Amino acid sequence: MTATATAGAGVTPSLVGRTVHVKVPATSANLGPGFDTLGLALARYDELEVEATDAATHDIHVHGVGAGEVPLDETHLVVRAAAHAFARAGAPMPSLRIVAHNSIPHGRGLGSSGAAIVAGVMAAKGLLEGVVEFTPDELLELATELEGHPDNVAPALFGGLTIAWVTPEGPRHKKLIVHRGVSPLVLVPEHEMSTALARSLQPESVPHSDAVFNVSRSALLIAALIQSPELLLQATEDKLHQHYRAEAMPETDRLIRVLRAAGHPAVVSGAGPSILVLASDPSERADAVRLVEESADTAWQAMPLAVDFKGATVVDADR
Amino acid sequence: MTATATAGAGVTPSLVGRTVHVKVPATSANLGPGFDTLGLALARYDELEVEATDAATHDIHVHGVGAGEVPLDETHLVVRAAAHAFARAGAPMPSLRIVAHNSIPHGRGLGSSGAAIVAGVMAAKGLLEGVVEFTPDELLELATELEGHPDNVAPALFGGLTIAWVTPEGPRHKKLIVHRGVSPLVLVPEHEMSTALARSLQPESVPHSDAVFNVSRSALLIAALIQSPELLLQATEDKLHQHYRAEAMPETDRLIRVLRAAGHPAVVSGAGPSILVLASDPSERADAVRLVEESADTAWQAMPLAVDFKGATVVDADR
Repeated sequence: MTATATAGAGVTPSLVGRTVHVKVPATSANLGPGFDTLGLALARYDELEVEATDAATHDIHVHGVGAGEVPLDETHLVVRAAAHAFARAGAPMPSLRIVAHNSIPHGRGLGSSGAAIVAGVMAAKGLLEGVVEFTPDELLELATELEGHPDNVAPALFGGLTIAWVTPEGPRHKKLIVHRGVSPLVLVPEHEMSTALARSLQPESVPHSDAVFNVSRSALLIAALIQSPELLLQATEDKLHQHYRAEAMPETDRLIRVLRAAGHPAVVSGAGPSILVLASDPSERADAVRLVEESADTAWQAMPLAVDFKGATVVDADR
Repeated sequence: MTATATAGAGVTPSLVGRTVHVKVPATSANLGPGFDTLGLALARYDELEVEATDAATHDIHVHGVGAGEVPLDETHLVVRAAAHAFARAGAPMPSLRIVAHNSIPHGRGLGSSGAAIVAGVMAAKGLLEGVVEFTPDELLELATELEGHPDNVAPALFGGLTIAWVTPEGPRHKKLIVHRGVSPLVLVPEHEMSTALARSLQPESVPHSDAVFNVSRSALLIAALIQSPELLLQATEDKLHQHYRAEAMPETDRLIRVLRAAGHPAVVSGAGPSILVLASDPSERADAVRLVEESADTAWQAMPLAVDFKGATVVDADR
């Protein structure tokens, strides 16, 4: 963080009345071989209007996904993330009036919690503009501290395809531009899945040969996503996480097998139970949708989604 | 393989007197996190003139590296590889007159055996031109069958940076163009290292977290080598092979630590004991050379080498 020239040291001008619009994309992490590493931003968004007020409490309104379910007090994840950023900046946290329009499904492996955290951090960034500046690494660090790992918050913040990793100095990311042929399809089941349960199914150790297998496929997946979509089926092979979790989500496992057997690069999205198909062009994506309609024994919602290239945005509502 | 139009089915015209020039680059494999996967072609070459003769035996002359050491009969690796390719093509193997000028060091982790195998396969391809055509996948398969793994023969055949992997249908590769800033430095010690010994030091299983670590770094290494050389130090971190082998080559381990502590992306080249430094520009490479001269307690030969972008070539000597 850098205090900017307009603010005297230690003095934060009143933010009351300042309003920002925040828009954050859905994300799909893990991406087959890229467990805990690769993430993709998708063009489906949570959008929020966030105003700093002098009210005694926060005033939170949620429309769309999560309405009537998420808490509407200071434990709301957007508020917690904003408070975390204000605290790090050494600035007093105002009360917030939040009106959220959410379209990212919850508990489905599409990065909804990461998106809420990023929304809070970006709201703080916007409200503090001209007072405190956050670097991209600082935004990633703040969001990762709350999310626990950087693989969803990195693409939510920066868009595109991200490689995220952790260093002694904090989380880092590299953003890459995805080949324009790549045509993501997200398949969302009716039921949710606990990320904690999914993570508990990981083994302590793995065969060296399986590790080397994923090393080759994750390298190949980068090449496939940015240059050679025709390699995506081979590049999405994985031996490190999906089969360990298959018993926890049998419908997901079954449909992925059906899709892959037909040549479609299907993987578990995040911790599941959604499926991400990285089709190499729109017509292959349409084929995959047809296959799902024909063969699935559970209701799946098919969402053809573009890659989001911008990541989270925050703009002053008065502009 | 496809029999070409000039040859009648099952009939191979006499190749006697046909002569080809073959040129094959050195390679560095493994590349830090990319164990058994990534390989880089380097502009240091073995060059051979290979003639099909009607003599009773092969006639082999080796100059430079290996002169007076390698066998000069049908067990010569170039001859064995050529015979393997002729056999696969169903064509009778002629006697060969080979004059080799070798500059790739032996037993140092720079792909000399892979280069000899590729030289033999490419010589066969050149001698059989117009009779039988080999696809790139077939060349890779023939060479991999003799070498045992594709990570050196892929860059030797195709040049640049290669990702190599094995499928039920045989070995496959993806070639990538390396960022022009990348400035390889190879450090070659006086002593050799047995690849078999190095491989015997691998563990059966590894922590899941170490596997995930290398998954992230190998993905990052692709991004760093083709787009962002400034990330090469972080991208060459590894937890899957180098430290397991460190006791077998203590001088190599020590010098890699010195180089990395100074910010240079140093890794074991292949199975060692040579070191590859993936400097991000020529001036950083010069700094690394100075550091080696100042700090090494064993004699190391420093070879600044360009990336080879063409891979192995074969041309008709009469053209």
